[in-house]
Amino acid sequence: MTNSPNTSANQMWGGRFASGPDAIMTAINASIGFDQRLYAQDIAGSRAHAAMLAATGILTSTDAEAIGEGLLTVLSEIEAGNFAFSTALEDIHMNVESRLKDLVGPAAGRLHTARSRNDQVAVDFRLWVRDQCDAAISGLTALMKAFLAQAEAGADWVMPGFTHLQTAQPVTWGHHMLAYVEMLARDKSRFEDARRRMNECPLGAAALAGTSFPIDRHMTAKALGFDRPTANSLDSVSDRDFALEFLSASSICAMHLSRFAEELVIWSSAQFRFVKLSDKWTTGSSIMPQKKNPDAAELLRAKLGRILGATVALFTIMKGLALTYSKDMQEDKEQVFDAADTLMLALAAMTGMVGDMSANREVLAQSAASGFSTATDLADWLVRALNLPFREAHHVTGTLVALAESKACDLPDLSMTEMKSVHDGITQEVYSVLGVENSVRSRTSYGGTSPTRVAEQVARWKTILG
Amino acid sequence: MTNSPNTSANQMWGGRFASGPDAIMTAINASIGFDQRLYAQDIAGSRAHAAMLAATGILTSTDAEAIGEGLLTVLSEIEAGNFAFSTALEDIHMNVESRLKDLVGPAAGRLHTARSRNDQVAVDFRLWVRDQCDAAISGLTALMKAFLAQAEAGADWVMPGFTHLQTAQPVTWGHHMLAYVEMLARDKSRFEDARRRMNECPLGAAALAGTSFPIDRHMTAKALGFDRPTANSLDSVSDRDFALEFLSASSICAMHLSRFAEELVIWSSAQFRFVKLSDKWTTGSSIMPQKKNPDAAELLRAKLGRILGATVALFTIMKGLALTYSKDMQEDKEQVFDAADTLMLALAAMTGMVGDMSANREVLAQSAASGFSTATDLADWLVRALNLPFREAHHVTGTLVALAESKACDLPDLSMTEMKSVHDGITQEVYSVLGVENSVRSRTSYGGTSPTRVAEQVARWKTILG
Amino acid sequence: MTNSPNTSANQMWGGRFASGPDAIMTAINASIGFDQRLYAQDIAGSRAHAAMLAATGILTSTDAEAIGEGLLTVLSEIEAGNFAFSTALEDIHMNVESRLKDLVGPAAGRLHTARSRNDQVAVDFRLWVRDQCDAAISGLTALMKAFLAQAEAGADWVMPGFTHLQTAQPVTWGHHMLAYVEMLARDKSRFEDARRRMNECPLGAAALAGTSFPIDRHMTAKALGFDRPTANSLDSVSDRDFALEFLSASSICAMHLSRFAEELVIWSSAQFRFVKLSDKWTTGSSIMPQKKNPDAAELLRAKLGRILGATVALFTIMKGLALTYSKDMQEDKEQVFDAADTLMLALAAMTGMVGDMSANREVLAQSAASGFSTATDLADWLVRALNLPFREAHHVTGTLVALAESKACDLPDLSMTEMKSVHDGITQEVYSVLGVENSVRSRTSYGGTSPTRVAEQVARWKTILG
Amino acid sequence: MTNSPNTSANQMWGGRFASGPDAIMTAINASIGFDQRLYAQDIAGSRAHAAMLAATGILTSTDAEAIGEGLLTVLSEIEAGNFAFSTALEDIHMNVESRLKDLVGPAAGRLHTARSRNDQVAVDFRLWVRDQCDAAISGLTALMKAFLAQAEAGADWVMPGFTHLQTAQPVTWGHHMLAYVEMLARDKSRFEDARRRMNECPLGAAALAGTSFPIDRHMTAKALGFDRPTANSLDSVSDRDFALEFLSASSICAMHLSRFAEELVIWSSAQFRFVKLSDKWTTGSSIMPQKKNPDAAELLRAKLGRILGATVALFTIMKGLALTYSKDMQEDKEQVFDAADTLMLALAAMTGMVGDMSANREVLAQSAASGFSTATDLADWLVRALNLPFREAHHVTGTLVALAESKACDLPDLSMTEMKSVHDGITQEVYSVLGVENSVRSRTSYGGTSPTRVAEQVARWKTILG
Repeated sequence: MTNSPNTSANQMWGGRFASGPDAIMTAINASIGFDQRLYAQDIAGSRAHAAMLAATGILTSTDAEAIGEGLLTVLSEIEAGNFAFSTALEDIHMNVESRLKDLVGPAAGRLHTARSRNDQVAVDFRLWVRDQCDAAISGLTALMKAFLAQAEAGADWVMPGFTHLQTAQPVTWGHHMLAYVEMLARDKSRFEDARRRMNECPLGAAALAGTSFPIDRHMTAKALGFDRPTANSLDSVSDRDFALEFLSASSICAMHLSRFAEELVIWSSAQFRFVKLSDKWTTGSSIMPQKKNPDAAELLRAKLGRILGATVALFTIMKGLALTYSKDMQEDKEQVFDAADTLMLALAAMTGMVGDMSANREVLAQSAASGFSTATDLADWLVRALNLPFREAHHVTGTLVALAESKACDLPDLSMTEMKSVHDGITQEVYSVLGVENSVRSRTSYGGTSPTRVAEQVARWKTILG
Repeated sequence: MTNSPNTSANQMWGGRFASGPDAIMTAINASIGFDQRLYAQDIAGSRAHAAMLAATGILTSTDAEAIGEGLLTVLSEIEAGNFAFSTALEDIHMNVESRLKDLVGPAAGRLHTARSRNDQVAVDFRLWVRDQCDAAISGLTALMKAFLAQAEAGADWVMPGFTHLQTAQPVTWGHHMLAYVEMLARDKSRFEDARRRMNECPLGAAALAGTSFPIDRHMTAKALGFDRPTANSLDSVSDRDFALEFLSASSICAMHLSRFAEELVIWSSAQFRFVKLSDKWTTGSSIMPQKKNPDAAELLRAKLGRILGATVALFTIMKGLALTYSKDMQEDKEQVFDAADTLMLALAAMTGMVGDMSANREVLAQSAASGFSTATDLADWLVRALNLPFREAHHVTGTLVALAESKACDLPDLSMTEMKSVHDGITQEVYSVLGVENSVRSRTSYGGTSPTRVAEQVARWKTILG
Repeated sequence: MTNSPNTSANQMWGGRFASGPDAIMTAINASIGFDQRLYAQDIAGSRAHAAMLAATGILTSTDAEAIGEGLLTVLSEIEAGNFAFSTALEDIHMNVESRLKDLVGPAAGRLHTARSRNDQVAVDFRLWVRDQCDAAISGLTALMKAFLAQAEAGADWVMPGFTHLQTAQPVTWGHHMLAYVEMLARDKSRFEDARRRMNECPLGAAALAGTSFPIDRHMTAKALGFDRPTANSLDSVSDRDFALEFLSASSICAMHLSRFAEELVIWSSAQFRFVKLSDKWTTGSSIMPQKKNPDAAELLRAKLGRILGATVALFTIMKGLALTYSKDMQEDKEQVFDAADTLMLALAAMTGMVGDMSANREVLAQSAASGFSTATDLADWLVRALNLPFREAHHVTGTLVALAESKACDLPDLSMTEMKSVHDGITQEVYSVLGVENSVRSRTSYGGTSPTRVAEQVARWKTILG
Repeated sequence: MTNSPNTSANQMWGGRFASGPDAIMTAINASIGFDQRLYAQDIAGSRAHAAMLAATGILTSTDAEAIGEGLLTVLSEIEAGNFAFSTALEDIHMNVESRLKDLVGPAAGRLHTARSRNDQVAVDFRLWVRDQCDAAISGLTALMKAFLAQAEAGADWVMPGFTHLQTAQPVTWGHHMLAYVEMLARDKSRFEDARRRMNECPLGAAALAGTSFPIDRHMTAKALGFDRPTANSLDSVSDRDFALEFLSASSICAMHLSRFAEELVIWSSAQFRFVKLSDKWTTGSSIMPQKKNPDAAELLRAKLGRILGATVALFTIMKGLALTYSKDMQEDKEQVFDAADTLMLALAAMTGMVGDMSANREVLAQSAASGFSTATDLADWLVRALNLPFREAHHVTGTLVALAESKACDLPDLSMTEMKSVHDGITQEVYSVLGVENSVRSRTSYGGTSPTRVAEQVARWKTILG
């Protein structure tokens, strides 16, 4: 926007908009600045529409072919960076159609038969979001593989299992990595469901009421890879569920990423030293060479905010809109574009970071062994071996832990005499459950942390992920 | 909370918390005030767990039976309102177990073998949310039927179709009602997907690592109606995806309700008079009998805010939580409880309101006919009958509309001579497309507004909804 | 992981990130793409810092002068569009400093004495947000003037006053316009408070602990227009309150705009016809000349979503960040940039639209008179003139309204005999309160809608706004 | 809600609402379930209104006195728990008025003269929110004192200063505590501003247009402690800014609490051991006595989610509401009630936790000294003492750190010869800046971490907080 020499306009508008209504209306109204990202979808939609118009006799084959060829030329011009987008032409649809007219003449004017910008933008945007579902699924698969590789390498490495960031029981590194594989698998499944649900073609709804031309909506739907045409024309041009569902699934996924990002930040602190991130995903300081700031992890932790913000934005925008199309809905694209870009970048960065990181196996094991982390194993043994009620077993265990604490030793360091002083029935066998290695080996319930179980899950996921 | 006589405590704590740390910690920490809603799920989970412990020999049949019976007694006490919940016992799990101990003695202490409160609350809450999915599906079905009944009754009633709240083209009442059936069908499908995805049983994950007892997780999963046990114990106690997905689906559904609620508020204004809401869903004024405030519609318009707020709350709570369980997650329940209650109430209220409302058919038809709403039909006819390119047909139509406007008449009122003065090729046939009845009848494309198409969709939905 | 030109890298990363870790880390980490907007603030901050370093003897005057001049050169290069921003240099600070080194040689290296990028970005961003507060205040003032002009012109035009979008009592156009002046005045006051609260200078906090150089923070604070330096160096580099408060105030303001935008959309419908928006702020349709879509109003209605989304994003990002600076906080800028741009554009567009719109005085008056809108006046008269208790007056009024309704007339059309048949005490005087003109004239309580009161408020605001 | 025996109703409504429209409408419409919390405000407002009606001659003194006394009786009945709230009477206003009628007879009917429920609820809710601002201010003051006490006790205790959760430079415990005092002071100032801005009395706006009774709005405003009456009656009944501003300020405050809560969770982990929380604010485990879960801190970390959710809810509810009152706005109260309760409880709990916690001074000091945390001091010394440009000083420091690292020692352990091998100009004086104690002592810039500066700030805050 240029500065107006006219100072009275400046006073009128206040603030930074010196140039008066025309420039402001253009700034707030034109969408070409962002919807040009839909060019490929717009051209694909138009090509399918033209072919259908020819097949149903609404358009001559000659016109349809000219249009089809012309659109390919526009596509290659845009992809080659030789296309001059015009704000005066407002949006991607008019930009493409205007150029098409230059290329093929009056036939271009027949392309808009039996459609309107309302169903055109609906199909463009839906195709774009469908592509993002595919990208998310692909990005998630890559990240699952990265976690799976970590899980396989460290299926039996012992580490502390935390609740409340306090050591609770020993688990294995592989098990912890697989927890994220499970979360990401659900994310993937959500994007698959969303994709399936959105895979209906709104093209042919026209302005809002359908059309009197004998169009074949099943043909365009098929040509564009949709499962079927949408069943109600009013709904077709008002519906943004597909965008909201994509954003919701993205928010849940970003929440998962934020959790592992937080773990990485904590784990790479000097106090934890559980993992070492590679230089590629950290930044240093010229004077403190030990300082390896986990920048990428911190940024990934933040990305939920960005995606959740976009989600809230679109929900708020859609709230209480009377049917059918309202211009409010033009605000949908920038939110989804930004959220999708953020998610794909975040998945790629996390994949890289997980692939590169190395666990500090010694520190993990040492941490796992501290803090009476096998007290639960002891209690379980008392139930199993001595048939104590669980609540009584807890009491005995508590007394033994207190004894160990008073002697500043760990549970396995208590002598058999000391053990028996608390409960007479305890036998030598108890020592077999007190080491952290024994502890994790014993957790063989389905889904448990024992290396055997972890290896089974690794095998299962390798089969699934190929 | 009562005022402490101790004024120094009062100064220390400031504000309303005169009573010192104990009362504050109880107020912030205890969950029994809200999680008592999970009593039926908690007891069902415990019963399944006890039966499995017996089947695997971890518990004697005698103990298991005593526990099973005792739990049923607790259940009936709660349902009869004879159960005294205790804040000192913190949560629903401890309240139930404590009463069980009164009833069956030491055997109660064996129930907690091979589980912990972490997997117990995970299974309770998941069962509760699963029930809400079912309730949402049932509530949505009822609402779809109410819209369908409206659609069937008014399949051919003509009304204005709006974009930007400006009349665009005539459509039918039935078509507008069916647009909501489509939206609600997607909502239903989302709750079905969410239910399917969450239908894995976390019981047996124990504290976080699984257990060394030879439990059978497939058995408890089956007993509780789950498809399978969860595959990773860490994930099992950290996962709140099911709650977030339920909230996201609820937000999308509430957005749909807010749109129809807005339409009802506008349509029942004195300026629109499109619908009359029944007295049951409106409030009046003792002195202005014409005033029929659409209170229920307004409240339904607002409910998206409430549910979206709960959604944002839980996303923010879950952000960046290191695995596995953290107490932050206790904040999940009140958000989901409130959102679910809100959604179910909203669905029921909307079902009642839609069932009762009566469209003002004359006003709708009159509104539909005004404002050159069939101009698009005229342009389409020019393309079809005279083979004009669409863009040229638009120009001719624009000239005719301007002519009609200058004569303060509508398009069908122009004489053939006047028509021909603008384009020589126009024939008598043109009048057949200019009436609103003709217009809607002509929109026969799949998903279009023609009464034939609407009747087909009504029939399709009647079959689906039974 | 190495950068691979080959397809296996592509497969590894999935999705769109074929280029491997370097490109991904750059994409997620570099901020120069957006923080270059801070160039003027960055240079102003550096100039103030250099001048202070010279004044305190930490830098020689010669060096300080060279730096000061060099920074001005950088500034003019950027403003002339001759500056090549480099992504390799990551952010605006390093881009400026690097260019400075080209220009003034080694002295540039002394500029960073006694500061770090942490306090540098804190001061840059705070200066930018402070400017936005000023811009918001200026934009709000312009919009208030536009509403005030409408209020003055139509101080005594009668229109319906709505509750629940149902006519309640007649009010005046001027009174309705002034309601928005009040809202915007609160908005302005919020930005003023936010500006005052943020007006403390973080420069000199250095990395996080302060510095051992004998700097003069009061001098830099003063030079940059701050009221004082911040009082705690840790807080100085962790604090983003100023951004959150700006976003919160912007959200409240956008909520006000969304309410008037909704009114414009409803008021410009064919059913209401209360206002006519100018062509500048609407879009038409080539074939339906009566169609004047209120696009700008719809977009303004949506903008709350966008700003609220940014607000939620930053709150979520800041949640639970341990002190002091974390890279998560780099996500603050794009949110605030977008929200500020949106708000300023929205204020300008609304100012233009309010300035141009014309109320349809006849339609407003006609609407106001319908629907027994003066029933409250009648009840009040019964209380005042006949000393009936309010609840009894309501009853009498209700009966009279029912009588009028049964006769299909309005209240002033009832005869004195009919009036007296309901309550014997009613006198001829009653007719003086039943017309809408009389009704609005009578509402003379402070803040009431009577033209006299409205004129007083117009005068008050003209004095305030100058 | 009871189960209906009527199964057809059940089918009609679907889901849990078996009982048909009446029960559903009551459930969605009645507010007495929550707005009874406004009883004190409602009665205070009515008393002020009655006194004003008498003073202006609208009511007789006898009636006014009877009403005033009757309202006091109602107040004491409610406070004694002897008041039977009735859902049939919908809201607090009708409940109070109905009981008043029992007590004082027909005079009760005169109380509603010159007001409506619209301005009544506006004044009630505003009074309630104003009280919450006072409570927040008081709660914040108590919490600031708790942090201040910690700051005073540990003004010179050395601890690591973090960026990115990596040790950056040593700071003092007192300095870190004071960072929160600064944040909370801004919170307090925000509540003070909000209180001042909302302190205008809407009573007398009546339904929406003002009134024709000769009321004295300045009198009621004064009686209720407001600065003045509101200036526009339409705005008075539509405005919920005060609630949104309270929620926004609460969200910022809750964000601050979430940051310290996160620090507490991390600091009390076995790996950090920086602080010990008292038993009052933690929960243990019967079998792992070392386990001290920081439950209260975790819950406080989560509370931002809850308050932010309420904030988003109310913004979404208010979006696009046409003036003036709409029933949507009834959804405001539960959100604000919950957010206010949450904030006050959170402030009290944090005050207790901060008051009780004890820093582990030895661990803090030890942590501070590790990791070349004084490298910046060395670089600064090179600039100051040898007049090196800052960037060159960085290079020398980096080389020295690398040397120390290669020798597995810390910086102060390098010999003078080793120092000189890197830069010849280094003198014995350098050792004086390398210890962490020296480091923090040297940071004497205003707002810096040196114990002297911290002590000054402690003194300043003690004066302010009294």
